[in-house]
Amino acid sequence: MDLNSDLGESFGAWRLGDDSALLDVVTSANVACGFHAGDPRTLLDTCARAVSAGVVIGAQVGYRDLPGFGRRFIDYDPADLVADILYQLGALDGLARAAGARVAYVKPHGALYNAIVHHSAQAAAVVEAVARFDPTLPVLGLPGSEWLRLADEAGLRTVREAFADRGYTPEGTLVPRREPGALLHDPAEVAARMVRLVRDGEIVAVDGTVVRVEAESLCVHGDSPGAVEMARAVRTALDEAGIPLAPFAGSPA
Amino acid sequence: MDLNSDLGESFGAWRLGDDSALLDVVTSANVACGFHAGDPRTLLDTCARAVSAGVVIGAQVGYRDLPGFGRRFIDYDPADLVADILYQLGALDGLARAAGARVAYVKPHGALYNAIVHHSAQAAAVVEAVARFDPTLPVLGLPGSEWLRLADEAGLRTVREAFADRGYTPEGTLVPRREPGALLHDPAEVAARMVRLVRDGEIVAVDGTVVRVEAESLCVHGDSPGAVEMARAVRTALDEAGIPLAPFAGSPA
Amino acid sequence: MDLNSDLGESFGAWRLGDDSALLDVVTSANVACGFHAGDPRTLLDTCARAVSAGVVIGAQVGYRDLPGFGRRFIDYDPADLVADILYQLGALDGLARAAGARVAYVKPHGALYNAIVHHSAQAAAVVEAVARFDPTLPVLGLPGSEWLRLADEAGLRTVREAFADRGYTPEGTLVPRREPGALLHDPAEVAARMVRLVRDGEIVAVDGTVVRVEAESLCVHGDSPGAVEMARAVRTALDEAGIPLAPFAGSPA
Amino acid sequence: MDLNSDLGESFGAWRLGDDSALLDVVTSANVACGFHAGDPRTLLDTCARAVSAGVVIGAQVGYRDLPGFGRRFIDYDPADLVADILYQLGALDGLARAAGARVAYVKPHGALYNAIVHHSAQAAAVVEAVARFDPTLPVLGLPGSEWLRLADEAGLRTVREAFADRGYTPEGTLVPRREPGALLHDPAEVAARMVRLVRDGEIVAVDGTVVRVEAESLCVHGDSPGAVEMARAVRTALDEAGIPLAPFAGSPA
Repeated sequence: MDLNSDLGESFGAWRLGDDSALLDVVTSANVACGFHAGDPRTLLDTCARAVSAGVVIGAQVGYRDLPGFGRRFIDYDPADLVADILYQLGALDGLARAAGARVAYVKPHGALYNAIVHHSAQAAAVVEAVARFDPTLPVLGLPGSEWLRLADEAGLRTVREAFADRGYTPEGTLVPRREPGALLHDPAEVAARMVRLVRDGEIVAVDGTVVRVEAESLCVHGDSPGAVEMARAVRTALDEAGIPLAPFAGSPA
Repeated sequence: MDLNSDLGESFGAWRLGDDSALLDVVTSANVACGFHAGDPRTLLDTCARAVSAGVVIGAQVGYRDLPGFGRRFIDYDPADLVADILYQLGALDGLARAAGARVAYVKPHGALYNAIVHHSAQAAAVVEAVARFDPTLPVLGLPGSEWLRLADEAGLRTVREAFADRGYTPEGTLVPRREPGALLHDPAEVAARMVRLVRDGEIVAVDGTVVRVEAESLCVHGDSPGAVEMARAVRTALDEAGIPLAPFAGSPA
Repeated sequence: MDLNSDLGESFGAWRLGDDSALLDVVTSANVACGFHAGDPRTLLDTCARAVSAGVVIGAQVGYRDLPGFGRRFIDYDPADLVADILYQLGALDGLARAAGARVAYVKPHGALYNAIVHHSAQAAAVVEAVARFDPTLPVLGLPGSEWLRLADEAGLRTVREAFADRGYTPEGTLVPRREPGALLHDPAEVAARMVRLVRDGEIVAVDGTVVRVEAESLCVHGDSPGAVEMARAVRTALDEAGIPLAPFAGSPA
Repeated sequence: MDLNSDLGESFGAWRLGDDSALLDVVTSANVACGFHAGDPRTLLDTCARAVSAGVVIGAQVGYRDLPGFGRRFIDYDPADLVADILYQLGALDGLARAAGARVAYVKPHGALYNAIVHHSAQAAAVVEAVARFDPTLPVLGLPGSEWLRLADEAGLRTVREAFADRGYTPEGTLVPRREPGALLHDPAEVAARMVRLVRDGEIVAVDGTVVRVEAESLCVHGDSPGAVEMARAVRTALDEAGIPLAPFAGSPA
């Protein structure tokens, strides 16, 4: 099992997230690529620290929207999106290379992540960008998303993730953020849910039913003190349950 | 002998330069990297067209300054500059790769180009970025500049360029832009000067003296109708003089 | 009757549009505000030239999206949009003031213009921004749009515009850009249509039926040689028909 | 006596500084204008909170450099700088107006502040911008700076400030940041220094000599927990010493 989290989201004078804490917890770092967050120096430092910590670097590509932190849907021309993603992949790879590693997988960020669950044209654009950049790179995403479906169709290796701090519907999808039960706050409960998910492939939905969820990676967050505590709790519980943790992606040669 | 020019300097809805015309003239394209000019889609298209035209792609790295077009000196912290250059090198290389090529050399742009003629800390930062990105990449610059001196010291291959449309001092340096004779406007005269430079290694300075100038590449411009005409005149004159033109850099494997 | 057009859309080294030609044609200039186009110096120069030409200055507010030229829908949080519009209104007003004028009306640009034909939350945000900035400013827009409906409800003065170069449906709305007849290309035909529209309040739709269109301003374009020629043809035809042209908005004190 | 501090320096998802704490301490808020920091919504909120707290709003204009937080010297064309400053003044004034206030004074930020201590062309550009925007606006700056000298010459009201947390040379200038004694860290000592400065017009320099420093405003910081504590200590000490605090600028009508 893999643990992933977003890193490198500071920008210039502005700090965000506790990257040091997370690098002790996760096996895969979704490193920002400068379009929604992450100035080059922050990204270079983040790559270097990931290398030191033995954490694999993934490219967290997003919309070109620093003021909106990539959290607003933008109705891109798909050809522009292909190029914007290629640019970000290359940029982070250049920094990763200078830090002694390479970009080893791709995970879209924020509103782009949400859009390509359903938006075929944008999903196809991201798939095209990855395939043209390096068709051996695995892509990380939501089970059942258009993004993973099209990536699979294009011959990319797809990796499904579950979200540690999110409630699930009886259908196995995420409870929308505005509904009750969308966000979980108790580290012990979340940790126990993740152990069960990894061991038995099941999770308790908001209505109490048990649903099957398949995932090769668990996403944890680190942008608040509570989030870091929860991430640590998940890591500790998995370790104590004897579940081996390892990145799903090796660093490309 | 090589002919180089700046390409890919459009941005979004804004067009700049006549890239199509230049791709018929030059052997090396200094392609913008998005920090002073060049949106990713423009850059991807430019790389694809360079590949079709058999023109080698270089990374024209610059300051992060779209409103100033990279033409204003910025007093960077050198560590920020290293990261900004690495980011640009990787970004353009990602796009070049998707177009079937690679970044094959590096030429700084605008105010950065001018700064690192003398500014050791910034010159060293750009050298460090190139060496960490790919120490086999040749770098293009002004003979006698701190930039080429430090690049050479760091073991990078250095390539010296001459400027087709600029006047030279008796010392073999460029006449500053604000002085008389800085800019040449007659395509026939410029073309003849370049043939003499290539053949005999000499150029007539503003005071009429003949000075020796060594260069492996000639820089021409294409951002005005007159500039394109001049670039074509230089190319034609070199061809008619039987001087073989070829890029100084091969595309890396 | 008023003639309006977009101006001030250059950015840094990049030129766009023929502002000089348009300032001889129009009575109202929709000047960009820096978020989709227009660097401050361009905007200051544009304001100064509008003042010299006796042309009234309007604020063409847009999404914060230079790479997309404000032509991509962005799913803003309405509270962010209110603030972004206020910022732009103030910024252009500061420049206009330095040029001896003031912002005299507001016209949204590009994808924002299109969105608020139907998008109530964004339309309400733009209305709120104008009302808070200066409730005496008239707003320019598409007849029947949510934007003008909400502006009217909020007590703003609304001004309806017609598009010189666009085809109309039998319902009096614009033919969508992807359908045949959306764009008109013959300056003489367009000029004649506009004279009829102003004189008789009617226009011939794509299916040949005659529809009533009410407008206090006509929008012409200037971003291509053909567009400038068409704008001039409209102006000349209106002049020759003895139709008095005057801005709908006076410059605020 | 007036107390001023920098506010509104958050940007999008990135938070910076403790604006709430500072609004209880200062009488004048140097609010960012979006070019070095401050997204429009943050700025609008900051203006509204300043109004609630009875704090006067000043425009903290800076270089256009979000990645560098306005802390890097940029070699602007003065005409570009005039326009960039006008744009920022207008933008913040639009937001302030919507919050029920107006921009009441101008204080340059960061590298621009430092540059115009000596750089005449940039100082003159900022002066020109203020004079063209509103010649009744007071300007805040370093005693003896080119900025205040040229502002005074242009007929602007100049206001001199002292820095609470900085050491002074025997000549009454600031100890450069890289030298020992540049920064003071003890809130009690700093508070006592400020009381003496206000009461007696004197301050103890790094070498122990007593120097005269004239100031109508004291600058405190709030970008770290220690900074807020120091700002509070200065305020409390001035209050306890019976020194009346009031903004130097009234809000323009």
